[in-house]
Amino acid sequence: MNRFDCISPLDYRYYGGNPRLFERISPFLSERAAIEYFLRVEVALVRGLENRHLCPPGVADEVEQKAASVTPEDIDREDGIVHHYAKAIVNSLRNVVSDRAKPYIHLFLTSFDVQDTAMSLRLRDFVNAVTIPDLLELEQVLIRLARENAEVVQIGRTHGQHAVPITLGFAFAEYVDRLAQRIEFIRKMTSNLRGVLSGAVGAYNAMSLAMPDPETFEEEVLALLDLRPGTYSTQILEPEYVTDLTYAIISTLGVLANLADDLRHLQRTEIQEVQEGFSEKQVGSSTMPHKRNPWNLEHVKSLWKEFAPRILSVLHNQISEHQRDLTNSASGRFVPEIYVGFADAVDRMLRICKGLEVLPENIERNLKLSGDYLGEQLYILLSLQGLPDAHEQARRISFKAREEGRPALECALADADLRPHIEKMTPAQRAILTTPESYVGVSVRRAHAVCDYWEAALLLPK
Amino acid sequence: MNRFDCISPLDYRYYGGNPRLFERISPFLSERAAIEYFLRVEVALVRGLENRHLCPPGVADEVEQKAASVTPEDIDREDGIVHHYAKAIVNSLRNVVSDRAKPYIHLFLTSFDVQDTAMSLRLRDFVNAVTIPDLLELEQVLIRLARENAEVVQIGRTHGQHAVPITLGFAFAEYVDRLAQRIEFIRKMTSNLRGVLSGAVGAYNAMSLAMPDPETFEEEVLALLDLRPGTYSTQILEPEYVTDLTYAIISTLGVLANLADDLRHLQRTEIQEVQEGFSEKQVGSSTMPHKRNPWNLEHVKSLWKEFAPRILSVLHNQISEHQRDLTNSASGRFVPEIYVGFADAVDRMLRICKGLEVLPENIERNLKLSGDYLGEQLYILLSLQGLPDAHEQARRISFKAREEGRPALECALADADLRPHIEKMTPAQRAILTTPESYVGVSVRRAHAVCDYWEAALLLPK
Amino acid sequence: MNRFDCISPLDYRYYGGNPRLFERISPFLSERAAIEYFLRVEVALVRGLENRHLCPPGVADEVEQKAASVTPEDIDREDGIVHHYAKAIVNSLRNVVSDRAKPYIHLFLTSFDVQDTAMSLRLRDFVNAVTIPDLLELEQVLIRLARENAEVVQIGRTHGQHAVPITLGFAFAEYVDRLAQRIEFIRKMTSNLRGVLSGAVGAYNAMSLAMPDPETFEEEVLALLDLRPGTYSTQILEPEYVTDLTYAIISTLGVLANLADDLRHLQRTEIQEVQEGFSEKQVGSSTMPHKRNPWNLEHVKSLWKEFAPRILSVLHNQISEHQRDLTNSASGRFVPEIYVGFADAVDRMLRICKGLEVLPENIERNLKLSGDYLGEQLYILLSLQGLPDAHEQARRISFKAREEGRPALECALADADLRPHIEKMTPAQRAILTTPESYVGVSVRRAHAVCDYWEAALLLPK
Amino acid sequence: MNRFDCISPLDYRYYGGNPRLFERISPFLSERAAIEYFLRVEVALVRGLENRHLCPPGVADEVEQKAASVTPEDIDREDGIVHHYAKAIVNSLRNVVSDRAKPYIHLFLTSFDVQDTAMSLRLRDFVNAVTIPDLLELEQVLIRLARENAEVVQIGRTHGQHAVPITLGFAFAEYVDRLAQRIEFIRKMTSNLRGVLSGAVGAYNAMSLAMPDPETFEEEVLALLDLRPGTYSTQILEPEYVTDLTYAIISTLGVLANLADDLRHLQRTEIQEVQEGFSEKQVGSSTMPHKRNPWNLEHVKSLWKEFAPRILSVLHNQISEHQRDLTNSASGRFVPEIYVGFADAVDRMLRICKGLEVLPENIERNLKLSGDYLGEQLYILLSLQGLPDAHEQARRISFKAREEGRPALECALADADLRPHIEKMTPAQRAILTTPESYVGVSVRRAHAVCDYWEAALLLPK
Repeated sequence: MNRFDCISPLDYRYYGGNPRLFERISPFLSERAAIEYFLRVEVALVRGLENRHLCPPGVADEVEQKAASVTPEDIDREDGIVHHYAKAIVNSLRNVVSDRAKPYIHLFLTSFDVQDTAMSLRLRDFVNAVTIPDLLELEQVLIRLARENAEVVQIGRTHGQHAVPITLGFAFAEYVDRLAQRIEFIRKMTSNLRGVLSGAVGAYNAMSLAMPDPETFEEEVLALLDLRPGTYSTQILEPEYVTDLTYAIISTLGVLANLADDLRHLQRTEIQEVQEGFSEKQVGSSTMPHKRNPWNLEHVKSLWKEFAPRILSVLHNQISEHQRDLTNSASGRFVPEIYVGFADAVDRMLRICKGLEVLPENIERNLKLSGDYLGEQLYILLSLQGLPDAHEQARRISFKAREEGRPALECALADADLRPHIEKMTPAQRAILTTPESYVGVSVRRAHAVCDYWEAALLLPK
Repeated sequence: MNRFDCISPLDYRYYGGNPRLFERISPFLSERAAIEYFLRVEVALVRGLENRHLCPPGVADEVEQKAASVTPEDIDREDGIVHHYAKAIVNSLRNVVSDRAKPYIHLFLTSFDVQDTAMSLRLRDFVNAVTIPDLLELEQVLIRLARENAEVVQIGRTHGQHAVPITLGFAFAEYVDRLAQRIEFIRKMTSNLRGVLSGAVGAYNAMSLAMPDPETFEEEVLALLDLRPGTYSTQILEPEYVTDLTYAIISTLGVLANLADDLRHLQRTEIQEVQEGFSEKQVGSSTMPHKRNPWNLEHVKSLWKEFAPRILSVLHNQISEHQRDLTNSASGRFVPEIYVGFADAVDRMLRICKGLEVLPENIERNLKLSGDYLGEQLYILLSLQGLPDAHEQARRISFKAREEGRPALECALADADLRPHIEKMTPAQRAILTTPESYVGVSVRRAHAVCDYWEAALLLPK
Repeated sequence: MNRFDCISPLDYRYYGGNPRLFERISPFLSERAAIEYFLRVEVALVRGLENRHLCPPGVADEVEQKAASVTPEDIDREDGIVHHYAKAIVNSLRNVVSDRAKPYIHLFLTSFDVQDTAMSLRLRDFVNAVTIPDLLELEQVLIRLARENAEVVQIGRTHGQHAVPITLGFAFAEYVDRLAQRIEFIRKMTSNLRGVLSGAVGAYNAMSLAMPDPETFEEEVLALLDLRPGTYSTQILEPEYVTDLTYAIISTLGVLANLADDLRHLQRTEIQEVQEGFSEKQVGSSTMPHKRNPWNLEHVKSLWKEFAPRILSVLHNQISEHQRDLTNSASGRFVPEIYVGFADAVDRMLRICKGLEVLPENIERNLKLSGDYLGEQLYILLSLQGLPDAHEQARRISFKAREEGRPALECALADADLRPHIEKMTPAQRAILTTPESYVGVSVRRAHAVCDYWEAALLLPK
Repeated sequence: MNRFDCISPLDYRYYGGNPRLFERISPFLSERAAIEYFLRVEVALVRGLENRHLCPPGVADEVEQKAASVTPEDIDREDGIVHHYAKAIVNSLRNVVSDRAKPYIHLFLTSFDVQDTAMSLRLRDFVNAVTIPDLLELEQVLIRLARENAEVVQIGRTHGQHAVPITLGFAFAEYVDRLAQRIEFIRKMTSNLRGVLSGAVGAYNAMSLAMPDPETFEEEVLALLDLRPGTYSTQILEPEYVTDLTYAIISTLGVLANLADDLRHLQRTEIQEVQEGFSEKQVGSSTMPHKRNPWNLEHVKSLWKEFAPRILSVLHNQISEHQRDLTNSASGRFVPEIYVGFADAVDRMLRICKGLEVLPENIERNLKLSGDYLGEQLYILLSLQGLPDAHEQARRISFKAREEGRPALECALADADLRPHIEKMTPAQRAILTTPESYVGVSVRRAHAVCDYWEAALLLPK
């Protein structure tokens, strides 16, 4: 079986077909890695036993060394006999160690002690090695985009309609901020992952046959893996540790999807304020040779369409009867897919943002499209003079100006009721009415301030 | 990359690790198959052109023959250059044909003409070759179970509480009926899958340069693939054809999940009315040697937990802007996973049902647990005599009997108000009150009737 | 409690605050209606009993007459005592009938015989009275838009990028087609709704005490309500009848959401090809007096965001243990919300489409934006001359033209390799290269053909 | 319109029909409350203006006083004219204040400044006033159940099969722990709710016309409401604050659903280890007078079925184009339903747990069902003696004992290979083999330890 025999697009394409991602992800989230981590937990157990003199000296070293020789193929063969995944791994390990070591393999443990602990380790290591670094890099690119474009005046858009101006850097600052908050959330949830070694029903029944303080022994073994135990477990760890982290990942994907939508709409032919990079030999369409499509951005949104609903599978896994049932087993195996899909989304977004072209002349063209936009300014300045119905007056003038195709200020001055108020305004206030591009509030300052804040909070290199 | 490098449990385990499923599924739903089907559509196009004398004679045969030599590896290499999946396949095909044939490869088509048509073909062929036959086999096994157990009296359970009796065969008949209805639904939706060859925006712009009747040409080409065109398309087929079929699959998975829940609860240690088969060398628990767990049933439920939420991804794919955006592309690639997950669920359920052990002595033991259950019978028989508050009387007697641990009929006869009514009953009616196991309504007849009906409707061999 | 005390926006706003919708929906989907339909089933039972001479003559008339006097308040009071919704209705009815009639109220039935049957009736009547007529009206408005704009040339858009031209009417025809197909699907699923009167565990246990043919009796009673029985039931109807219909509704909402997205993007300030109607006194923004937002379209999309995920709740309801558990009870009560949310979406879309303004000058302006768009035409026409690398040549010319800001045909003629091929073209073919607005394929014909087809199939008045 | 005209079961039944919940919830989450909170924010704005001398003195008091007289009916009428919810509230307020105050109403603000801030306030106040106190009360009840039953030996169940023993108190400790962790999570997310007053596009454009430090002004006004501003906003607050809290609520509902499942399965007729309380007049079934169903537990699970999928709607709301679109508006209005549904679930669970009956004799009966359960003990004790294949030996003995219906220890002693090992065991070890009910690990200690820990961490009264 090679990758083209696969069903999952992750395996045949987005991960399996992307050597850079494959190399970084496979040590943590492939099935091969799952087995390695499983064995790592088994080794830690024996080391913990030896530290407590519960098994003969030297056994831990032997087991660690022999574990390295156990292959997925061995395990697969054994699984075909015992029809029990964990038992197959355990047997495969037991088969290669000496009789002296055999009794201590997996001693006291139930399968999910090892599987849940290994899953926590894999997710933690993966998030720390791949997810967080990539997100931090993306954060830095977004900060650069926000700073570089902090003063590029752009029309703000609400409901897809021109509203009042901002700057492009201010618009990027939204994602600087939302992404940074998600990074912090992911970090917190990652550092809260736990391990477990509490036996068949969580009450340390088996361990209690050999020691008075099994909870301490659990802590000792997990410490070898740099992990803390959960505060309670049945046969399985409480699911919320992984649920919370996965929610953190999926809600971060939502932020990326929103950014992808924004950027691809800004790329519409009629708007074209930004442009996804495009390599020279790249083909836009198999039939329309002139096309340059924002397909990477669309890909990010598409991953969101695929993975956002999977939060429900994860929530389904919260429910397990009594000291556990197995109805979270198969579905639990799919959880790493979410992290891989997310890694692909981040990878794409990183590439897109790094190569993003900003087209200032189009931004300016669009800004000018809607004329002088004094709806809000006029209403506020009139209100500040105490006019009780300023909003209605401004609305009236705004529609009149649009219909007659005249500058709104001209219409306002032509209005006998409003003219005196306009004339009372300071030159600076009148300037705002005639140069709508200066009506950007504190966009420039905020763009930088948000970047400053998160550079400090996330300890980013400047 | 081998299967243990995969991320998806389908690839490394449920499909990739199950040679029987692999062999049956890979010709339709693997990436290799996706490419083969894509090329099959390209070949059909050229054949259609040749039939219309729009390309030189012999080109179709050449293309068909050469298409067989295009490998996924070729395409992968090309994709690395053009960054366009469909174009990569097209180029790979074009690279191996003569210059004479080159202009006719993919002529008029946009990528999704081929991809959507190929997807419809793959899903149709897969459902017809694997899904429907397996479901029909499961249906037959369920019919056997319903018929064999049609007279085994079992306590009916509502809210997990003993209600009134049925028979085990009648309980199985529920799934005979629900599954059969789903099979019919899947068939209808499968036969409604469509193809498309309408060009970049669905208006046959390119074809119209060469012929006056492009819709007819589309029909001719699709007919070569035994497919009809949709009634309208943009760049892509209307999504509802696939959405509806996938809903059919997922709602059928819901029926299997319900059956799995029923069977595993019937297998609880305290109930144990049925038992999942267990091979001799199989291990129930890595720490508890005595365990026999209903793990295959749990697996089916777990697949439901994973795949049911994916209907949302499919519904997300209904939305594509204007003549299409690409935000359904990645997510569309994941759709076949649902069919594979479902195939695994059916495969398991089939194995479980074939090997299911029924334990009649436990069924009888449980039936007797609740004593004489005359709550409902008494209330109905009293009502039929015109007693206005029969339900309340029966409720009173029922609680009295439970509290005093006496047979309810005895309590009823001891009641001065009720005694005359009881005495008026016919012997047959009184028999019902004393032999609750005969109070099964038409369970036996219905169990058979449901089986008869569906054997006929689905044309099942008897 | 009045409507402003409500929690649900349906109750305080979208339904409760919209007198037109309230009047049409409340007779079917309010709680008051639920009770009325429940009583209607109870009356049918007694009439069925009387028809079979199982109760004294005249009882059915009495019960029907008295049922009209039972109020929700009565039932509520009773529910406070018995803590059982169905029993509360039954008791309230029993309380108002004569002792002679009392024994026959609800005789043989379990609560969900009545509730499931009443739910099928309510949904059927609602869909037939409101959903289908509104959808047919929307279909007609879409047909009008498709026909009226059948010849308005518009640029086709894929990936938000200009592709090749279509006509606006052809674009509307997409929704004529998709909506029509959904209407047919909804109709089929509606006509498949069923009733049930099979007692506590579905085996007609109670009825069997009084008659040999309870299935026939069930048919007789349901026929009084113009309903057929399901082919099997436990204590409850098989859930798939309602699941399928609700899926039909939600997938139709997806079509409306897609239409809403298309229309609101066409309304972007930079594009502005269409415009949602706006009443004179309407306010666009509480701070920006000049705004005209496509808020009704956004509302339709927002309803999709809210209601699409609820398909999962409905799928959850497929699973009920053994002869039923009650875990689908509360969640089942929420199902009508989906139909009401959908009714609101249709109502909005109808209003939007009826008042939609098309701005042909902007459509033309946008069409011209991208110049001569001969990418595809050139490639096809060159291919038809047998040029083996036509796509690559056209791609090269297209990028060259864009970079140099020259007409693409000019670039092509300036190319020594291509010039001879261009010169070989017929005048009609060259015309296509210089008048891209004529490159609309069969848009005009298809727009009308789709309308013709569905007007006939749906029997719409022309 | 009264509550029986409602569509939502929350309004007509679970909230509107439960006076206790209605009274506690309506001040926060009804539409009436939404309006009151909206006005509260408007008042805070004017007070902030007055504090800065931006409006005449006394205006804030006037506005506060007049705001109290604005009714939902007024607003509704106005909404019928302006078709803009927020503007309707603003106008209604403006209509009742003096001309002197009019210009300062809503000055600088966009609708969602007020709506988002009001939503944060409502959710915060509701969670603090209802959600957290109810959860803490439930936590205390669970602690009581865990402590009272800490020594009640119960068979542990995995896969619905008897595993090894625990105690009932240890089983309850699972929920003590999971619920406590969720309470902490909810608290953190609640304290992270934010307000916003940043104008039409988030850049404080309007405020900047009147002051140099609009961010500080925003802080001042929000401080009057005891709220902090978000770190960035567009026209709307970043959605993640509410998304995170709502996820916290829904994941807590998952814990309750799991508890509900556990308790209702323990209540199965064959198991019956616990029992939901039942009032004297309560009716179990409308046809089976003897029934006592765990319907409140089923209700909790059913609420999970309904509300868990709604996390997807909330995740959908993360995506809003550019400086916002309105596609999160309708769907955002449904968010409070989730909190109300959850409140109902907590309320039920509280009532259930308070009245829960434990049936120790049944617990003991079930414990004895599986005989001497020495599978695991035997395997561990043999391993500790260095036996290399202890698991296989124990498995063999276990199946032999089951088949022959003999005590497993007897079988083990009869085995020539094992006998010497058994004889080497200490009396304490052999005791464990013969008194399986003592094989409960550290169940008792852990049950208390978990309770101790959370009583301290959550500052619960003992």
